[in-house]
Amino acid sequence: MVIGKICRFGGGFRSCVLLPSTRLFTSSATMAKSKFEYVRNFETDDTCLRNCYIVVRLDGRNFHKFAEQHSFTKPNDNRALGLMARSARSVMEELEDIAIAYGQSDEFSFVFKRTSTWFKRRASKLMTHVASQFSSSYVFFWKEFFGEQPLSYPPSFDGRVVLYPSNRNLRDYLSWRQADCHINNLYNTVFWTLVQKGGLTTTQAEDRLKGTLAADKNEILFSEFDINYNNESALHKKGTTLIWEKRDETITKRMKLPNEEEKDVSVTRSRRRVEAYHCDIIGDQFWEEHPDILEDDNC
Amino acid sequence: MVIGKICRFGGGFRSCVLLPSTRLFTSSATMAKSKFEYVRNFETDDTCLRNCYIVVRLDGRNFHKFAEQHSFTKPNDNRALGLMARSARSVMEELEDIAIAYGQSDEFSFVFKRTSTWFKRRASKLMTHVASQFSSSYVFFWKEFFGEQPLSYPPSFDGRVVLYPSNRNLRDYLSWRQADCHINNLYNTVFWTLVQKGGLTTTQAEDRLKGTLAADKNEILFSEFDINYNNESALHKKGTTLIWEKRDETITKRMKLPNEEEKDVSVTRSRRRVEAYHCDIIGDQFWEEHPDILEDDNC
Amino acid sequence: MVIGKICRFGGGFRSCVLLPSTRLFTSSATMAKSKFEYVRNFETDDTCLRNCYIVVRLDGRNFHKFAEQHSFTKPNDNRALGLMARSARSVMEELEDIAIAYGQSDEFSFVFKRTSTWFKRRASKLMTHVASQFSSSYVFFWKEFFGEQPLSYPPSFDGRVVLYPSNRNLRDYLSWRQADCHINNLYNTVFWTLVQKGGLTTTQAEDRLKGTLAADKNEILFSEFDINYNNESALHKKGTTLIWEKRDETITKRMKLPNEEEKDVSVTRSRRRVEAYHCDIIGDQFWEEHPDILEDDNC
Amino acid sequence: MVIGKICRFGGGFRSCVLLPSTRLFTSSATMAKSKFEYVRNFETDDTCLRNCYIVVRLDGRNFHKFAEQHSFTKPNDNRALGLMARSARSVMEELEDIAIAYGQSDEFSFVFKRTSTWFKRRASKLMTHVASQFSSSYVFFWKEFFGEQPLSYPPSFDGRVVLYPSNRNLRDYLSWRQADCHINNLYNTVFWTLVQKGGLTTTQAEDRLKGTLAADKNEILFSEFDINYNNESALHKKGTTLIWEKRDETITKRMKLPNEEEKDVSVTRSRRRVEAYHCDIIGDQFWEEHPDILEDDNC
Repeated sequence: MVIGKICRFGGGFRSCVLLPSTRLFTSSATMAKSKFEYVRNFETDDTCLRNCYIVVRLDGRNFHKFAEQHSFTKPNDNRALGLMARSARSVMEELEDIAIAYGQSDEFSFVFKRTSTWFKRRASKLMTHVASQFSSSYVFFWKEFFGEQPLSYPPSFDGRVVLYPSNRNLRDYLSWRQADCHINNLYNTVFWTLVQKGGLTTTQAEDRLKGTLAADKNEILFSEFDINYNNESALHKKGTTLIWEKRDETITKRMKLPNEEEKDVSVTRSRRRVEAYHCDIIGDQFWEEHPDILEDDNC
Repeated sequence: MVIGKICRFGGGFRSCVLLPSTRLFTSSATMAKSKFEYVRNFETDDTCLRNCYIVVRLDGRNFHKFAEQHSFTKPNDNRALGLMARSARSVMEELEDIAIAYGQSDEFSFVFKRTSTWFKRRASKLMTHVASQFSSSYVFFWKEFFGEQPLSYPPSFDGRVVLYPSNRNLRDYLSWRQADCHINNLYNTVFWTLVQKGGLTTTQAEDRLKGTLAADKNEILFSEFDINYNNESALHKKGTTLIWEKRDETITKRMKLPNEEEKDVSVTRSRRRVEAYHCDIIGDQFWEEHPDILEDDNC
Repeated sequence: MVIGKICRFGGGFRSCVLLPSTRLFTSSATMAKSKFEYVRNFETDDTCLRNCYIVVRLDGRNFHKFAEQHSFTKPNDNRALGLMARSARSVMEELEDIAIAYGQSDEFSFVFKRTSTWFKRRASKLMTHVASQFSSSYVFFWKEFFGEQPLSYPPSFDGRVVLYPSNRNLRDYLSWRQADCHINNLYNTVFWTLVQKGGLTTTQAEDRLKGTLAADKNEILFSEFDINYNNESALHKKGTTLIWEKRDETITKRMKLPNEEEKDVSVTRSRRRVEAYHCDIIGDQFWEEHPDILEDDNC
Repeated sequence: MVIGKICRFGGGFRSCVLLPSTRLFTSSATMAKSKFEYVRNFETDDTCLRNCYIVVRLDGRNFHKFAEQHSFTKPNDNRALGLMARSARSVMEELEDIAIAYGQSDEFSFVFKRTSTWFKRRASKLMTHVASQFSSSYVFFWKEFFGEQPLSYPPSFDGRVVLYPSNRNLRDYLSWRQADCHINNLYNTVFWTLVQKGGLTTTQAEDRLKGTLAADKNEILFSEFDINYNNESALHKKGTTLIWEKRDETITKRMKLPNEEEKDVSVTRSRRRVEAYHCDIIGDQFWEEHPDILEDDNC
């Protein structure tokens, strides 16, 4: 009998009292667990509607402050943009079925194929996994982009899921984000040029830009600072688009075939890789050049 | 006129052609954006039902492999458990309205107050923010717990949201997770003792434990290895519970009051801090000792 | 062989062509059906959160017009209110687990027990079944309340589902509807008294009541028309509350017991019946007198 | 002063006590209502995803029993099928934006246009309104189809909402329902022929049909009963499809134009009407002949 043994090995009053109660607990722990298990039924099903593209968009939390504290250059910090893209690539490589991702500033959108069954299309799983992989990668790859400059605190991103039933809707979503990139970047470029080269205070720059149209902003850059916005970095104007591409890779292997001498043989194989673009994705050209990204509407 | 200026500063045919088109684009970018903006309406509202506790639970993705690759000690790695708790504390400190968090193994649950209006109770925002903050913290604080042992790759966690309408349901949820901790830890303790001290292979240990009850496992530990499971670490048996507590802090400040000489003054102030417990949360005692965690059912 | 037989029994060109194709179709209909069956997976789960009261509220569609066309008396038509209550009773008797229902004007709310598993708690099934049973009953019982006055067209009601996690929330919901009943009835009573007895046009009555408080309205009724609102019909002031009640029913049966002569025996049995109340349900008294309606919060 | 007046007009103790309290209540009813109004926030948004077809399907509740009690003829009762279609037509005429409806046996599906904004696309409103209008119509039009045979009790239907993102998905849904109609009707036709003409009991007929394929069933009908299933009623084999069609209507009006004598004038105008079809909707022909039902996938 158990109790006897326990008392033999000594324990004072306390252990004698405690042990049996623990034993009682442990012997009924499975029973106890099954008593509580009903709480699982409070989970609700959040399966995404079939045959729709699933977009998960992440946005940096308080990145204005984060940028300040880590001295991001204005209006764009290439290290930060590179780190965002690197983290996004990590997400694409870890999760299945992301057909395309698009990012700008402190946001990144990931598009799951409309036929994906990854995570049984459960919205909560998809978005938390993306948010988690992106965030751990951001810290993990920080040093690759910021070198010795330390990361002061762990940043965070929030996410959401949106479904798009048609190719047109999905392309309009991506166009919306790229138009947003363009508008913000033009504004920020002029604003920081006025401050950094024009010597205006931030308030003065803000006043100067109030009510101006895109053409006016181009004109300020051009006539006052001799800057042609068109020649600005595509990364800044267009953001970053990540897609999967097949590339042939040729390597040389030393091989020994039967009845032959050993010799060097060229082996070519096709590998899928994530590639980055900084080009227009609003017009048709990009989509015509990459016809595999979208699936047919009529499925 | 804009075109004139552009052509003056040179560009060949290409830029002459491109530039106006860009200008056309930029001047209508705002219009273009508003044309795409309809896609916002595809977002659905996922507000959590009012007056319910909101539980966000994170689970490590492929942590079996992660533990292998980072040589976690068996059956429990205190560094890994410490890092989990540190990351959870980071979540509690960054997000408002988490009343209690409970973790064990590679999972952690965060309980938002039933009256919380954080993020307007939007489920997607709550769970992605928790998943993101936890994951970036896990990488950020890695060194504090693993020292020079490098992190090989960024890990990830997936999450879910569950609502509980009553205090009883919430306590049963937490009891369920702690009962799970207990059952797994008892099993793992015996299993790894059989392997590490008993010299069994993992297959033999598995066979040995097939069909055993909790009492049998206690008995194996005690009679064969002289181990009283009751004396095992509370951290391993009970997991980690994090709550907010008010602590008085007294510091000495050197002050100069009007018409007095400068002198040292004791200043006491009450500060909210996250405190960790490794105790039973199934029974009533813990809840009676911390009456502020739960809100009244009748609200 | 099928084709032969078909051709043998004649038919002209048309049937010869059609028949085999139909046969082909029918022999593969099961296969065809299974090919289409994937569309079932587009259904989403809309299970209501456990341990919450499920309220289904119906509202008449265009009942202003419906009331006009069927010459409902103003401000209240007792036939119409009776028919609403009769239809609600039909819903309670046909569906399981409705603990209480409350109606006023052209709306009725049905409260399913928080522990109900009726229809697996599927929101769509619950609300459509309620809407359907209520609507068919409304037409079915029309004659009982409107006699020879014909129903001009089939009316309709729309519905919604709302969940309430606590007894307090549920009682506040019912209080909200009864307060709404009171406010509208007081307004309508004064309005139609001004029109019907005071000779005002509806526009004049509206102007007269603009900005008046409840006390003002009571005063108009009392001082100008000698009407004490307090003495108005409880049905109009409080609406209709339906609950289940056990009633003892005694019937006389003629029985023959062994070794006795046949004789009349009184048999009492307890039967559950839907009972109607027109009383205050905002205060505690009603709930204290009917303690079985609400389930314990702490479950 | 109000109290004075009240006491003057008599009432005993009771009314004197009650009245002021009522007055107090009424004067604060608006306040009371606003105190309860927070319960509105427990409603959740159930807006249907944009750019998807919204299908509401109704199914008769316990229609096996209903058919028995109202002596429906077997295997099909044309009165009952006519009443279903009449009720469905009533739904289409009352609700906006239903592009097509399909029904068979005791079920009917209603397809809202993918661009519909009816009821702000709120799922609960759409399905309850359909269920309600259908059910009240079923009772209302009963007499048109069943004449003097009385309706014994108000029947009910439950409903659900399913979204389909593409034309292919929607057509597959409708094909699924029509394939179901075909399979059931073939089975029922043979089953009841075996019983009614072949003299088998229902159990014998069931046994006889166990494991038979469509071809076998056709063969039984043909070789044993000289029935060519292909010649059976299209209503039974194909169900009922309702769509909107424009029809020119020419009426003669007596008109008097200026400076002319009064004369009869033919006036033609185009009117939208609900038309019924009993044809195949699985193949392409129906859809090619009615190109306006579906909207373009690429929108």
